[in-house]
Amino acid sequence: MQLDHEYFMKRALVEAEGALDREEIPVGAIVVMNNKIIAKGHNLTETLTDVTAHAEMQSITAAASALGGKYLKDCTLYVTLEPCQMCAGALYWSQVSQLVFGAADEHRGYRKMGTQLHPKTKVVSGILSDECAELMHAFFSRKRKQH
Amino acid sequence: MQLDHEYFMKRALVEAEGALDREEIPVGAIVVMNNKIIAKGHNLTETLTDVTAHAEMQSITAAASALGGKYLKDCTLYVTLEPCQMCAGALYWSQVSQLVFGAADEHRGYRKMGTQLHPKTKVVSGILSDECAELMHAFFSRKRKQH
Repeated sequence: MQLDHEYFMKRALVEAEGALDREEIPVGAIVVMNNKIIAKGHNLTETLTDVTAHAEMQSITAAASALGGKYLKDCTLYVTLEPCQMCAGALYWSQVSQLVFGAADEHRGYRKMGTQLHPKTKVVSGILSDECAELMHAFFSRKRKQH
Repeated sequence: MQLDHEYFMKRALVEAEGALDREEIPVGAIVVMNNKIIAKGHNLTETLTDVTAHAEMQSITAAASALGGKYLKDCTLYVTLEPCQMCAGALYWSQVSQLVFGAADEHRGYRKMGTQLHPKTKVVSGILSDECAELMHAFFSRKRKQH
């Protein structure tokens, strides 16, 4: 059967929950090609002590490795949070066919920052945005209580 | 002695030559802290089959690893070519103190693309820009002859 955006965003949310379990900002991403998940990743900036270790970056690298080629031309990247400048810039180079994201990032998101995606990349936003945003709120609310 | 921008850009050029030797687009980068090189890297997008493997990304990751912390607050990143959106976005997150680059990238550079660096990041451009640009020209001219 043809699986839909909600189905795949739920899988990205499972990745985000994996980040939460490690006390990482809960963002998850997957890459889908022909109805099949070829890569997944979640934010690992704290675990790896590396600002570049965003969910999308992990997934772009893993997808290219799975494909044996660096361009994601027939792929869709699902991510629970709107990508930042860095990740949108990486998506630009990847020439990904489609970007689907959940919650908007009004402050650091690529749209507010004016980052350009590849002209061939189609964008779908707001898929399960409440669930995606709720995970972020839960994380930051817990962090505030700890300090 | 206090080493200057030209000294460190020459070291970044050595990295770029390392990329050229691997038939990679010749861009090299280093990270300097307190007059000392703590990380270096060059473009590896072909070798690693990964669009995210730019010289700056390699160097930011390596510098954070050397420091044991993800922020490059007292560091200068030297790179032979003006960073792209992705790399400028990574530099934004790293809060690097200073960015020094050689050749301008009029098409895909972060300034043309409108990418924002961290407000605390100081920028110096045009250091050994002719040498940095010459290496790029040599690469693309050789590639054109091959095809």
